Amino acid sequence: MVFPMTERLVLHEYSQSGNCYKVRLTAAMVGKHVDRRQYDIMKGETRMPDFLANVNANGRIPVLQLGERFIPESNAACYFLAEGSGFIPTQPFDHADMLRWMFWEQYNHEPNIATLRFWMQSIGAANLDDLKRLQMPAKRQGGNAALKLMDDHLKDREWFVGDQLSLADICLFAYTHVAGDAEYDLSRYPNVVNWIERVKGHPRYIAMDA
Amino acid sequence: MVFPMTERLVLHEYSQSGNCYKVRLTAAMVGKHVDRRQYDIMKGETRMPDFLANVNANGRIPVLQLGERFIPESNAACYFLAEGSGFIPTQPFDHADMLRWMFWEQYNHEPNIATLRFWMQSIGAANLDDLKRLQMPAKRQGGNAALKLMDDHLKDREWFVGDQLSLADICLFAYTHVAGDAEYDLSRYPNVVNWIERVKGHPRYIAMDA
Repeated sequence: MVFPMTERLVLHEYSQSGNCYKVRLTAAMVGKHVDRRQYDIMKGETRMPDFLANVNANGRIPVLQLGERFIPESNAACYFLAEGSGFIPTQPFDHADMLRWMFWEQYNHEPNIATLRFWMQSIGAANLDDLKRLQMPAKRQGGNAALKLMDDHLKDREWFVGDQLSLADICLFAYTHVAGDAEYDLSRYPNVVNWIERVKGHPRYIAMDA
Repeated sequence: MVFPMTERLVLHEYSQSGNCYKVRLTAAMVGKHVDRRQYDIMKGETRMPDFLANVNANGRIPVLQLGERFIPESNAACYFLAEGSGFIPTQPFDHADMLRWMFWEQYNHEPNIATLRFWMQSIGAANLDDLKRLQMPAKRQGGNAALKLMDDHLKDREWFVGDQLSLADICLFAYTHVAGDAEYDLSRYPNVVNWIERVKGHPRYIAMDA
């Protein structure tokens, strides 16, 4: 595929969101610049009519803007940025395997680990309504199951797909490395801890608060 | 990308699952044959040690098998099957936009519409525990929001991405066309109803119970 990059990239984001960070991390890893536009999701700024009409009808960030076009969904935005780079395997099975981990991240990992982090860190445990509070044990269990699956997968391997860092690692890294914010005990998952250090050791790595 | 297809494809599945159906539908649309191996998820057959060790450590179907290798996650399996076909746009933005809808499907659509369908149709409303019952209003609201987003998007267009049927349509179709099983009223979403008929009109379309 040809990747014509003639327009500026704008990331509509909330900097503490791991989904937004993964887009910034991908951009850094492939050496692309994104302008950043901040929204305060605690004030509902992504649910305003202007945002819904012009940026994302789904009322969520991140959204990557390229000229007049917009890409919601963090993993789709990461794929767009990394297109043609060495972070996307070209061998069809490895490529599908990378997507497999990215879909798994959004289905099994993010709704447990990221949501619990948001509830505990941004809303605050004392402020949760009953519906959220009742879901916490299931999310705790689901998050630990996700971390265990990652730990088992990394038992005999350095990266999630093939033998080098791919977009799957970048997308999984974003919320995993801050799982402690949601009181997940990462020391129970030593292979994950070692993998986190490997990702951080990449020469183009940038931290979440960079 | 080159797609060497020298080995038989086996779909590990539960035929009533929309996630499994979307893999069969993709295979039919691209003219590939998949052998089918059934598991009774109501009896926990995908949580057995043999399945976890050899097919998918995540204990879920569908899983697409190619020789000794396995691809869990329905949308990743669909991508693998459709690789190189006209159902995957080659223009980078359209390609990312297709992935955007596929990630959205797994995050905003499936957990609401598919889960409610499973609870109501397979477990039965009378048999749900309190944690599930308490989540039903949120899932009902989330599912209707997803259907409305689809309906609005289809207001001026025939397909989700660009001007032809793509993998995004196939993946979204699977649970949307049976949303009535979860007592969603599709007649509230006329653009979705018309789109469902367009998908069904494709010459290679196969029904869920085919």
